[in-house]
Amino acid sequence: MTIRRLEQQIQFIIEIDKLKQIVRQTYLTDASRRENSVEHSWHLALMAMVLSEHANDPDIDVSRVIRMVLVHDIVEIDAGDTFLYDDKHSESKIDREIAAADRLFSLLPTDQAEIFRQLWDEFEARETKEAKFAFALDHFQPMLHNVITKGKSWQKHGVKKSQVIEKSRPMQEGAESLWEYISDLLDYSVEEGYLYE
Amino acid sequence: MTIRRLEQQIQFIIEIDKLKQIVRQTYLTDASRRENSVEHSWHLALMAMVLSEHANDPDIDVSRVIRMVLVHDIVEIDAGDTFLYDDKHSESKIDREIAAADRLFSLLPTDQAEIFRQLWDEFEARETKEAKFAFALDHFQPMLHNVITKGKSWQKHGVKKSQVIEKSRPMQEGAESLWEYISDLLDYSVEEGYLYE
Repeated sequence: MTIRRLEQQIQFIIEIDKLKQIVRQTYLTDASRRENSVEHSWHLALMAMVLSEHANDPDIDVSRVIRMVLVHDIVEIDAGDTFLYDDKHSESKIDREIAAADRLFSLLPTDQAEIFRQLWDEFEARETKEAKFAFALDHFQPMLHNVITKGKSWQKHGVKKSQVIEKSRPMQEGAESLWEYISDLLDYSVEEGYLYE
Repeated sequence: MTIRRLEQQIQFIIEIDKLKQIVRQTYLTDASRRENSVEHSWHLALMAMVLSEHANDPDIDVSRVIRMVLVHDIVEIDAGDTFLYDDKHSESKIDREIAAADRLFSLLPTDQAEIFRQLWDEFEARETKEAKFAFALDHFQPMLHNVITKGKSWQKHGVKKSQVIEKSRPMQEGAESLWEYISDLLDYSVEEGYLYE
């Protein structure tokens, strides 16, 4: 163990503090303010702990899902949060995020930079059962917050049910039952006027 | 799987959103505002991932440390955050937090309520190597933020180096090298006038 190694690790730990300042479009459940990407990530990690039995594959590695969701938004420190329904910005999203991953994870010692990059790449590729379940949680959480806040973010941005379904239906690949649960809440949200038909 | 079970899990997930509103005495590293307990918990989980090689016991179960730190502050939803150097409030802290744990974790299905309670009890008891390391991270993070913000929270509350050492020295039981690292920064902080001698 060299001091240099610990110094690199501490620099990374200080740098990621900036993720607390990246504000998302999703509101807290009491609608008092928008949440930031750290709050979102913590919430997903807790959801992974509580909801893993609803993953399509019961043999899922929950600890890996937890790590993946804790890390998945760190690139937003450089790339910013891209709103799911902002198609214009979504085009450049992946390039911005790859550049961010290159810079941010390389603050770590090489072996750890690789581990973090693999977690992020796995999340983005959405091929493993863990990444598919992480994707499901990443979409389930803001939808749940929208239903609870009477569609506050949906209303603000004029989001339609067909858009929500198009973006979030791949949740089925990770957690069919959570998709069914939230689909019912989308129907309810249209009935209540929280979400445009 | 019953709908009732999923409903209970969702109620817990919604309830813990309130932890995003519990503000701590620690400032973000840019000193712009105080952080909340969710931000602190996420930061500790990332520190567990990055710094686990500095635990006294190399055979530590990192995934358990991550879960422990993600869960350790949930009781603050009811009990509030108790400032480490507030001895008056610290006396009643444990009673308030036990009542909170009783209420909050019991929102979950019984089997999961037990798992969460065990994680919290383990953290509080500080007997296992994982709990000792989690304690070390829980103390290391706010000290690091204080050094970076030129002692912003220490200054505000007139905290002395002897108090910091008294409260945080048990870090040694979990991570001797992190305690040494931060001890040097405490000396530096006194020299710079960030922390009272």
